[in-house]
Amino acid sequence: MHGSGVRLTSRLMPPNRQIVLHRRPRGPVSADDFRMETGETPALEDRQVLVRHRFLSLDPYMRPRMDGAETYITPQAVGAVVEGGTVGEIAESRHPRFRPGDPVVGMGGWQEYSVVSPDDGLLRKVDATMVPLSFHLGVLGIPGITAWYGLRHIIKPRAGETIVVSAASGAVGSAVGGLAKASGCRVVGIAGGPRKCRYVADELRFDACVDYKEHTRADSLADRLNEACPDGIHGYFENVGGMVTDAVLTTMNTFGRIAVCGLIAGYNGQPIPMAQPQAILAKRLRVQGFIITDHLDRWPDALDELGRLVRDENWRPRESVSVGLESAPTAFVELLAGRNFGKQLVRLD
Amino acid sequence: MHGSGVRLTSRLMPPNRQIVLHRRPRGPVSADDFRMETGETPALEDRQVLVRHRFLSLDPYMRPRMDGAETYITPQAVGAVVEGGTVGEIAESRHPRFRPGDPVVGMGGWQEYSVVSPDDGLLRKVDATMVPLSFHLGVLGIPGITAWYGLRHIIKPRAGETIVVSAASGAVGSAVGGLAKASGCRVVGIAGGPRKCRYVADELRFDACVDYKEHTRADSLADRLNEACPDGIHGYFENVGGMVTDAVLTTMNTFGRIAVCGLIAGYNGQPIPMAQPQAILAKRLRVQGFIITDHLDRWPDALDELGRLVRDENWRPRESVSVGLESAPTAFVELLAGRNFGKQLVRLD
Repeated sequence: MHGSGVRLTSRLMPPNRQIVLHRRPRGPVSADDFRMETGETPALEDRQVLVRHRFLSLDPYMRPRMDGAETYITPQAVGAVVEGGTVGEIAESRHPRFRPGDPVVGMGGWQEYSVVSPDDGLLRKVDATMVPLSFHLGVLGIPGITAWYGLRHIIKPRAGETIVVSAASGAVGSAVGGLAKASGCRVVGIAGGPRKCRYVADELRFDACVDYKEHTRADSLADRLNEACPDGIHGYFENVGGMVTDAVLTTMNTFGRIAVCGLIAGYNGQPIPMAQPQAILAKRLRVQGFIITDHLDRWPDALDELGRLVRDENWRPRESVSVGLESAPTAFVELLAGRNFGKQLVRLD
Repeated sequence: MHGSGVRLTSRLMPPNRQIVLHRRPRGPVSADDFRMETGETPALEDRQVLVRHRFLSLDPYMRPRMDGAETYITPQAVGAVVEGGTVGEIAESRHPRFRPGDPVVGMGGWQEYSVVSPDDGLLRKVDATMVPLSFHLGVLGIPGITAWYGLRHIIKPRAGETIVVSAASGAVGSAVGGLAKASGCRVVGIAGGPRKCRYVADELRFDACVDYKEHTRADSLADRLNEACPDGIHGYFENVGGMVTDAVLTTMNTFGRIAVCGLIAGYNGQPIPMAQPQAILAKRLRVQGFIITDHLDRWPDALDELGRLVRDENWRPRESVSVGLESAPTAFVELLAGRNFGKQLVRLD
C-alpha cells in the first residue's frame, strides 16, 4: 500500500471527455484547430486526487502558447489537452489534505476530470461559501491577482491620479478598475463597442470609458482620451497594444508608469509596432512587462486585498458563461475576437 | 553701486560673435539653418560674471529642440543664440565667488562670451589642473553624468552581466562602457563603421563592438549581437532607436533593463517604430526613459565616480575638435549624421 507507482484498478473511474489542440492555428484561431476526445481517467496513486471540473477559465494568454514558438511560457503541445485554469471539487482523494467535495482551483485544462498531485503546488482549496465558485477563476483568481500585481507593484498609483486600463470590461481590466477606484484614483477604461463601455461606466463604476472602435486612427483616439483624462494619464495598465497604445502614449503624463500585462491585439499574429517610442524618452516613462507566475510569493497579499474588494465593496464583475465542454473552442474564438463580455467561462454540467 | 538694474557703461566690453538659429530645420539639419551675428556684450550687473568660452559642446539632444515642438525641454527659439554647454574662464566678475581666470562650465551657447548670473545655479567652477578643460563637457560633464545615471540608477548591473550600449564611440556611450567595465561587466558596443568599432574595442577596451552599418535588417544585426553576447544582454543603454533597438530586443534576456537616454535615429524626423513591443512582455523587461536634468541632486555622486574613472583607470575618451565658432554648424550636421568621432567640441581661439 501507499505503493509508489502501484495503480489501482480503473473500473470505478469515469470516462473523461477532453478537448485537445488538433493543430497549430494559422493566423486567427478557429474552432477547427481543436478536436474532442474521450480519454481514460488514470487510477489514483498515493497522494493524488481526482478533480471534477465545474468551470473552465478561457484566457487570452492561452492563444500565443498555441503557436508553439518559444515564448515566456512553455508552448501548448499539439494533440494534448488544452491547458488552462479550472475550478471544481474533489471527486476522490488519496491525499490527506483533500476530501471528496472540497472546492478547489487548479490548472486542470479543457476536460471533465483531472488527476492531480497537490504536492506540486498547483491545486488550492477555496472558500465557496462567500462568493460563487467561478469567482476563483476571475477576480479572486489569476486575473484578479494579475490586476493587483501590475497596479500595486508597477503603477503604484496615488490618490487623485488618473489610471487608464485597456480591455476594461475583461476579467483583468475590471479588477484593475476596482482596485484603482478603491485607492481614490480617477479610472478610465478603454473597451470595444457601446455595450461594453456602458457596462464599464455604469456597472463597474469607472469614471469614464472610451470606445476604441469609434476610432480608426491613434490621434483621434488620443483626442478622446484627452477629453476623458483632463489631468492626463499617470498610469496605464496595458492589455492590448497597437493603436490603443499609440494613443495612450500621446496622452501619458511625464513620469508615467505602464504595466504591460497583455498585448491581445497581436495574439492572432498581427504586427503591433509601437509607432512613437520617442514618448518613453520625452516623458521619462517607465514601461514594465510582467507575468504573474513570476510572483507567486505575492499571491496571499493580492488575495487579501481582492477579498476585501469583493466583500466590502460588493464588487461583482460580470461573467460570460458558455455551457458544455464542447462549447469551449467557439467561446475561445469569440474571446480572442473581443466578442465576449467580462470573464469568459465554460460551465460543465 | 550694487544697483539693481543699474548698468555699467559698455565701453570695456568686447564684441561677441554669435551663431543663431536662422530657421527651423526641415528634415535633416543643414548648415544653412544657422547664421552668424555679432552681438553686444551687455555690461555686468551686480552678482553677474562675464565668461569667455574656450570650448562649445555639440550634443545630439540639441537637434529635437530646434524643431520647436513642445518636447521634454523648452524649444530652441529661432533668431536666438543656439543654446548648449560651454567651458571657459571668467573674464570679469561682479560675483564674490568668482574671480577672473577661474575655469567654469556652464550653458553659454554658441558665442564667444556670455553674461551669467551664477546664483541661477547653471555655472560651476571646475578643476582644470588634473584633466583637460574640455573633459568637463565630456566624461566629467553632462554626457558622463548621463551615462552614470542610466547605468547606476536604471540598469544597475551586477558583475558578470552583459551590458550593451549603442552610439558606443560617443561621449555618453564611451562613459557607459568605462563605468560598466569598472563594475566587472562584459561590455559590448554598437557603433557605425569599422573605424569607430576598432576604437571602441581597442582604445576604449570594450569586450566587443558590433558594426550596425554591416546590417540592413534587425534579424541579421541580432544574429551578430548574439555572437557577441553569448550570455545574452542583461542591460541596454539606448542612444539610438530604430533597427538597432529591434535587434537588441531580440537578444535581451528575461528581466533585462533598458535605459532610454537618446533616440538619435529619429532626431532628423525619421520614423523609428519599435517593431516588436511584444518582447517587453515576453521577457518582462523594464524600459525607462530619463533626462539628466531631472536628477541634479545625483550629480555630486556621479562626478565622484567619474573622477575615479579618469584618475584611477586613466580613462581618456577621444574628442573631435573643430576649430573656430564658424565651424559649429557644419560640425553639428556631421554629428547628427554620425560622422564625428567621440565627444564633439568646437574650440574657440
